[in-house]
Amino acid sequence: MTRQVALPDGGEKVRAAGGEKLLEAAGQVRELLDAMVRLDVRTPAAPELVERLDEVLELLRVEIAPESAMVPDLFKDRKGDYMDRSPVSGALNPMAPPVSLRMDGENGVRTSTRLGLPYQGPPGRVHGGWVATLLDHVMGFAAGTVDQWIFTRSLTVDYDHAVPLFEELELTAWVEEIDGRKIWVRGQIEAGGKVVAQARGLWLPPRNRPAPQD
Amino acid sequence: MTRQVALPDGGEKVRAAGGEKLLEAAGQVRELLDAMVRLDVRTPAAPELVERLDEVLELLRVEIAPESAMVPDLFKDRKGDYMDRSPVSGALNPMAPPVSLRMDGENGVRTSTRLGLPYQGPPGRVHGGWVATLLDHVMGFAAGTVDQWIFTRSLTVDYDHAVPLFEELELTAWVEEIDGRKIWVRGQIEAGGKVVAQARGLWLPPRNRPAPQD
Repeated sequence: MTRQVALPDGGEKVRAAGGEKLLEAAGQVRELLDAMVRLDVRTPAAPELVERLDEVLELLRVEIAPESAMVPDLFKDRKGDYMDRSPVSGALNPMAPPVSLRMDGENGVRTSTRLGLPYQGPPGRVHGGWVATLLDHVMGFAAGTVDQWIFTRSLTVDYDHAVPLFEELELTAWVEEIDGRKIWVRGQIEAGGKVVAQARGLWLPPRNRPAPQD
Repeated sequence: MTRQVALPDGGEKVRAAGGEKLLEAAGQVRELLDAMVRLDVRTPAAPELVERLDEVLELLRVEIAPESAMVPDLFKDRKGDYMDRSPVSGALNPMAPPVSLRMDGENGVRTSTRLGLPYQGPPGRVHGGWVATLLDHVMGFAAGTVDQWIFTRSLTVDYDHAVPLFEELELTAWVEEIDGRKIWVRGQIEAGGKVVAQARGLWLPPRNRPAPQD
């Protein structure tokens, strides 16, 4: 029942493909994101910041691909490089913390991360939406150990305790039950050795899918 | 039962406080985020990009506040400026789309947004976690029309159809039931006139809270 999934690798494939400098830039934009929410609204650096960012954007303008070029074909390119641009695990996406998953048993995955101020919901806590985002992501990869093409159909998150910013969060997800096309998954977040959020969800393959190739 | 909530205003308060240039910079970093996920891994611009971003970060290094300074006191500063740095509605947070909410009836809120490539989960679709993030955020504001201090206790999202990137998404949230401390909320996302995702959730005030002040 278990298949091998391509887990996020922290940019290893990007690095191997000659993308070392771009990975470095993504890390810098991540740092910039964090800095932006720590500036006073009247920071004296603002005018020069605007000028310099203008130059940065000008530099990239001729290099960026059209939006449509970055939407892969669902069935042909499912394992393609686009996961390196994921908002949760993509080493090239500055919005991603990012997370590198590892297998945990036959149909489980595990990872850890630490979120800073850009992810703040209530004071000192991770935004409830980002709690769900982390869980959906790792649970989706757990479901992906069963079927190559799957979508979240339903997700329930229980917020038992505050999910703290600035602290190591341990994420675990595992397949609980497989019932025909239905893949039921559980997930949890631990902080300081305590389960702070739990989730359960249902993953399904799309209705129109090609025949399995691997 | 209804109280007036401070809804995200698209940076109006920041602008009024002299933060016009910083808002402009946040918009540029938003554009930069989008550009970063549209570059080829071997883009020839990468080395110069790294150099220029290094200068940008150097410029901000002396201006950024310590992380702890940006965590407000839950009860004293709940309505403070920190919402302008929210990951969903904060005009100053480049990760935020951002969204500006408006009231919709007595205990409801409504907004619309469009998400680009940084938010991509499955090809051409919004990441399931970000679908939950948008819903949690607007539903939290709807719950906020009942009680000033509330946290998400539980959230269930049903992903009925694909939530498309690059298209206008209409978000609605409304309080369904109030039962003692419990505030039950519903929310939905429409795309192209069709409901593509629905959610229900429970919001609760924290156990240790000061007496109401307003």
